[in-house]
Amino acid sequence: MSVTTTPEATTPPSGTPREPRSTTRSAAAARERSAVLESRIAQNPGEYRVLTGDRPTGALHLGHLLGTVENRVRLQNLGVEVFLIVADYQVITDRDDTGDLPATIREVLLDYLAAGLDPERSTVFTHSAVPALNQLLLPFLSLVTVAELERNPTVKAEAAAAAERGRRGTSGLLFTYPVHQAADILFCHGNLVPVGEDQLPHLETTRMVARRFNQRYSAARPYFPEPDALIARSLTILGNDGAKMSKSRGNALELRASEDETVAYFKRARTDADRVITYEPGRRPEIANLLQVGAHFTGTTPEALADEVGSAGAGRLKEIVSEAVVEGLRPLRARRRELASAGPRHLAEVLARGNARANAIADRTLDEVRDLMGMRY
Amino acid sequence: MSVTTTPEATTPPSGTPREPRSTTRSAAAARERSAVLESRIAQNPGEYRVLTGDRPTGALHLGHLLGTVENRVRLQNLGVEVFLIVADYQVITDRDDTGDLPATIREVLLDYLAAGLDPERSTVFTHSAVPALNQLLLPFLSLVTVAELERNPTVKAEAAAAAERGRRGTSGLLFTYPVHQAADILFCHGNLVPVGEDQLPHLETTRMVARRFNQRYSAARPYFPEPDALIARSLTILGNDGAKMSKSRGNALELRASEDETVAYFKRARTDADRVITYEPGRRPEIANLLQVGAHFTGTTPEALADEVGSAGAGRLKEIVSEAVVEGLRPLRARRRELASAGPRHLAEVLARGNARANAIADRTLDEVRDLMGMRY
Repeated sequence: MSVTTTPEATTPPSGTPREPRSTTRSAAAARERSAVLESRIAQNPGEYRVLTGDRPTGALHLGHLLGTVENRVRLQNLGVEVFLIVADYQVITDRDDTGDLPATIREVLLDYLAAGLDPERSTVFTHSAVPALNQLLLPFLSLVTVAELERNPTVKAEAAAAAERGRRGTSGLLFTYPVHQAADILFCHGNLVPVGEDQLPHLETTRMVARRFNQRYSAARPYFPEPDALIARSLTILGNDGAKMSKSRGNALELRASEDETVAYFKRARTDADRVITYEPGRRPEIANLLQVGAHFTGTTPEALADEVGSAGAGRLKEIVSEAVVEGLRPLRARRRELASAGPRHLAEVLARGNARANAIADRTLDEVRDLMGMRY
Repeated sequence: MSVTTTPEATTPPSGTPREPRSTTRSAAAARERSAVLESRIAQNPGEYRVLTGDRPTGALHLGHLLGTVENRVRLQNLGVEVFLIVADYQVITDRDDTGDLPATIREVLLDYLAAGLDPERSTVFTHSAVPALNQLLLPFLSLVTVAELERNPTVKAEAAAAAERGRRGTSGLLFTYPVHQAADILFCHGNLVPVGEDQLPHLETTRMVARRFNQRYSAARPYFPEPDALIARSLTILGNDGAKMSKSRGNALELRASEDETVAYFKRARTDADRVITYEPGRRPEIANLLQVGAHFTGTTPEALADEVGSAGAGRLKEIVSEAVVEGLRPLRARRRELASAGPRHLAEVLARGNARANAIADRTLDEVRDLMGMRY
């Protein structure tokens, strides 16, 4: 998820450690590249295949919707082919208990479909149902060194987060995560991956695996694409405690919440002591977040909304925002209730169709990979 | 492969580093355990399923035959079900070039069949042809920590060997090797793995994965067996340069060699300056090795063979040994020629049947594993 509304310091304060110039330059280059990609997508959406997905650790919340799901639906509706992986094996990278996965996945599917993902155009599948995809892990692991995995930012961050929760020892599954990600993206020849700006380096292992595979086994005509990162047009939003919205923090508004729950959720939202509402993301993050969410759902800007509320204060802002969210989510929630009341069969069929399609593609890719590697006997 | 003919020091010379007592004790316990297993196998061979295999890096040589292949055939003929994995993905753990894998695998298959492996009773399959087996890598990787993989003796030894050959950086595939091994053994519920005495610790990751999987997902009734190591009744033999026989050292006698090549091979065998032949493995390893090979093929003991040659010297010993090997391998080589002249179709059928059987078993195991993990949607 990218932060599109937080102003970026172009000149860091002196004495502050900063990233090496090349990283700064490459972030700027990636933004430029993403702008170019967006215009190409608009012209030739059929040339792109997006791979994206979620760990099924719970029903989706407002942060998912504004952070990734709306952007996926946007790309789908532009005519890009979207592959959506429900990464069930990733649930056990850093925890022992998977919870009730079938129930969780049903909730996630309801959220996807209610938000506008169309199973006729997009492919939703579960990681564990596609053996040929998972087998790609073996040849891909041969193309990456242990030292490269140790340096991977996803692995580092996730291992640190797991250690914070008191978990001892990085699991082999977490350690090899960047290579699974490569398999997830490359099995369907995905060439576009929506990421947040802070996640740009996370795609590097996939690009490296594709490049090395091509060099070693398919030099004449590159077999795998080196996927491009598309910096997502999206919003990273805060929970009502002022921290990043996340299920595990208990500060999230689930998409499936009722209208009353939504109103109550925003009533509890943390604000600050200043009476007059102003849009100052750096100094007033909680107020700015409410303004962003409100503006998103009413089609205005956070600045305009701040002017509108002015000295009416945080209480009035919360009313406006919760009303906007209730209104904005009403069609999604109506579709969700309708889908839920139709029973689980439809969801099972959607997943079965997605899994069948993912398997057909993965089987073909694995066949071709085995041919290229000379492993056909 | 175990060294059955090298006398073991029960008391190490003072000042010499030795293994901790527990290792010594556990090696003794493992030998005892293997003796018990052998008598159980003789009584109830149907209760055992063996998983064993080779990396297809070249045609098999005399070291393979005496070290592992004869023991596999022995177990098969006792009525144990033998699964034989041709570990094609393991070829790229520590090298970039796979060579001509289809040709190599045809040679290995010819060697297996000529040595007496019966595809009606044993299952020969290639690693890359069984996706459901390979998918087991993912749940199994979640059960093992990076620190545990770092401590694994196979990984350490192989990484050191690769570094010696000038290869920089351990690949992710080599690093996760013990977990692939667990998948290879457990996919078919293998409960018996023939190993050399020096390889006892190598089975520990598989036992640990089985134990942890059972604890976490199948506490009521253990789903996977914790396989037993069967210390192989076999011979580690030297090449004709006095070092351990290995294809990469160029000191190996291939099973497919002609009789003339066999005679020439033993003519070049390294010996020592003592005229009188005696069986002293510690002091005279090359002579002892020739005596072991000769004794193996003539059904006598190395000591008796040494007495027989006596002062006739190394030249006479080489004649006797090469004659014994030529005679001993004659039936194997005749079968091999017959199979080879029948063309590749029979070999392809043997492999296709083995792969189909391995896939049926792996699919079922993966289904059950997904059920136990709650990953059925």
